[in-house]
Amino acid sequence: MSGREFFTALTVAEALAGFRPARRTAVERVALHAARHRVPAAAVRSPAALPGFAKATVDGFAVRAADTYGASDGLPAYLDLAGAVRMGRAPDVRVPAGGAVAVPTGGVLPEGADAVVMVEHTAETMPGTIEVTRPVAPGAGLVRADEDVAAGGGLVPAGRPLRAPDLGLLAAAGVTAVDVHARPRVVILSTGDEVVPPDTVELGPGQVRDATASALAALVADAGGDPEVAGIVSDEPGALEAALRAVLPRADLVVVSAGSSVGARDETAGAVAALGDVFCHGLAVKPGKPTLLADCGGVPVVGLPGNPLSALVVFGLVGGPLVWRLAGCERPPPEPSTRARLARDLPSAAGRLDVVQVVLDGGAAHPVFGPSALLSVLTRADGHVVVPEPATGLAAGTEVEVVLHR
Amino acid sequence: MSGREFFTALTVAEALAGFRPARRTAVERVALHAARHRVPAAAVRSPAALPGFAKATVDGFAVRAADTYGASDGLPAYLDLAGAVRMGRAPDVRVPAGGAVAVPTGGVLPEGADAVVMVEHTAETMPGTIEVTRPVAPGAGLVRADEDVAAGGGLVPAGRPLRAPDLGLLAAAGVTAVDVHARPRVVILSTGDEVVPPDTVELGPGQVRDATASALAALVADAGGDPEVAGIVSDEPGALEAALRAVLPRADLVVVSAGSSVGARDETAGAVAALGDVFCHGLAVKPGKPTLLADCGGVPVVGLPGNPLSALVVFGLVGGPLVWRLAGCERPPPEPSTRARLARDLPSAAGRLDVVQVVLDGGAAHPVFGPSALLSVLTRADGHVVVPEPATGLAAGTEVEVVLHR
Repeated sequence: MSGREFFTALTVAEALAGFRPARRTAVERVALHAARHRVPAAAVRSPAALPGFAKATVDGFAVRAADTYGASDGLPAYLDLAGAVRMGRAPDVRVPAGGAVAVPTGGVLPEGADAVVMVEHTAETMPGTIEVTRPVAPGAGLVRADEDVAAGGGLVPAGRPLRAPDLGLLAAAGVTAVDVHARPRVVILSTGDEVVPPDTVELGPGQVRDATASALAALVADAGGDPEVAGIVSDEPGALEAALRAVLPRADLVVVSAGSSVGARDETAGAVAALGDVFCHGLAVKPGKPTLLADCGGVPVVGLPGNPLSALVVFGLVGGPLVWRLAGCERPPPEPSTRARLARDLPSAAGRLDVVQVVLDGGAAHPVFGPSALLSVLTRADGHVVVPEPATGLAAGTEVEVVLHR
Repeated sequence: MSGREFFTALTVAEALAGFRPARRTAVERVALHAARHRVPAAAVRSPAALPGFAKATVDGFAVRAADTYGASDGLPAYLDLAGAVRMGRAPDVRVPAGGAVAVPTGGVLPEGADAVVMVEHTAETMPGTIEVTRPVAPGAGLVRADEDVAAGGGLVPAGRPLRAPDLGLLAAAGVTAVDVHARPRVVILSTGDEVVPPDTVELGPGQVRDATASALAALVADAGGDPEVAGIVSDEPGALEAALRAVLPRADLVVVSAGSSVGARDETAGAVAALGDVFCHGLAVKPGKPTLLADCGGVPVVGLPGNPLSALVVFGLVGGPLVWRLAGCERPPPEPSTRARLARDLPSAAGRLDVVQVVLDGGAAHPVFGPSALLSVLTRADGHVVVPEPATGLAAGTEVEVVLHR
């Protein structure tokens, strides 16, 4: 039976390509200092050219390049020192033919000059006269007024989370607030009569504390979302449907951490189907097969497998990209990864994506096997290796990409 | 002169190995939901075994494995159905010899049983009798009471930022608060008479808005720090020293985004030297040579190059690891990276680490060249390639690791 299910299940790539809820979060304006990793709703253009004035990129002397042609240690060019530029001030002098004006790195290029000679290639042997011992080409030792960004030029694109240098460029352009998509509100519902809150001090027989919700909340935050751990729903008929009805109006995405038994899984599928359209029920991935994707009145719903390990693996593959997409980001930022060689053979069934946890030891990746009921398999691992659908396994020694836990 | 400086400068690795301020931030207790990416100050151990009871990992029947030996489709083992286990409840029945008890995935293994047969390998052809068509070994279809974590076993180690699965395992163990190092308070001082705040609407001649501080604040936050953008200090003699004196008492790390001219750099070095011990002034890295590391009464101070691009590159190499170390994390979490082939030759001077920004196009890495005065070089790039100190360059076609901007 499990073999059959795998072959009718969608691949992760098919699911991500086909399940494309149109929903996007609202646009809100945030201050620059709060805009890190947020997703701009529209490209931001520069109101003016940057840096806004031609400036020296070396400490030296602004000159007319032609005046230095042929200069050498043996035969320096002699230029008249006409003055000096001060940082953050307009030059009060221009560079005449045969003249030079001292300028610090970052100083405004004075009129008349078309290059800056590095101070290391000059000497002031007589007061008021500069010896230049190397020729410079026009444009050397400076940046043009619009060389960083032209007026109206793009500062940051829409749809890509803002990185540190982006914030710097926005600040340089005087843009101190950005229109970004609101963080997607992701409501996490746990189910299962055996599940109790993490702050339960003494467990009754057969009870387990809700591990998945806390871990999912962290993964949601990693994906730029705003997680809400909405509690534990009993396995009673109708309870999950009622809980879903209650949270859907405030959710951009609902994640159901399903009970682990067949009955609990059926209950999840039934409740979701009663409220919307099930896109798929079953992914060709191990662990994580019993994954459900649905659209409930425009709100995507992800039903995760009951085992914490499976739930977290699937959320990483499918849920993270969905959260980014809700915020207008089609291409999630890259995850940390490294290359390593498999320390042993990895068997896999063709047609199924296998996600195998590994411990890194030097350049070797040692698979961590264990029931997907064990969360410690995940916490002991440094990352995971993906064995793609067509492969029937990977041989020991194969170089693989390890996606690192972060 | 610049050549000489490179050869007396420390390598980045030497600087990180040698500059090791003993300072660590205080320990504070945070709730689990706020502990993502925080660094535990001590290993956390489990008060009890997890999951705490032997449980089924499949839907099926708890049995004595010996009763199933030799079972096949042709010759099933017949077992008496003695009852059923309900989720989250203690079993009210034990498994006698020749008997079976129905149990859902996650249910408590009843006494007497040592294995669980998957429901797929059974049939209930007569009420009260289960046909088992496959033999199971002892331990099959279940996890032991301490298989996830033993009582007193480690849940999470000290010194490693907490990941999503760690939070799950802590929740499973009922640990709802963790002692972590406080986020290092990183005070960012900008200097330069030409530098004005980002919210300056109209720039005067030669003025530039402070781009570096905003970008540095984001990098500090990426490294788990708590940034404070403390404003712009003039180039007047004594001003930076006074500003440093004012911020040192509240800082775990001070970052000085130095003015770009020689004079401004000298001023930074002088101010820092007046207040503490300069560890090095000059790193063998391009861009980023004029980097200063100092210890001012136990507070590390990093003096960055004046150009925004250089400052951000150096902070990524040196500042980020320092921030992590202040929080008790010796091995910063991995950065996103990918492999690509250089689209053209990269020249480099031996003895110097070159950080080259690249744009990725399929599997090719195209270097983005441009003066380090241009922040757009950094925002256009997808990541950077490091040409290590011994290399005199890398040939086109070389496979390189690209550290991706995030």
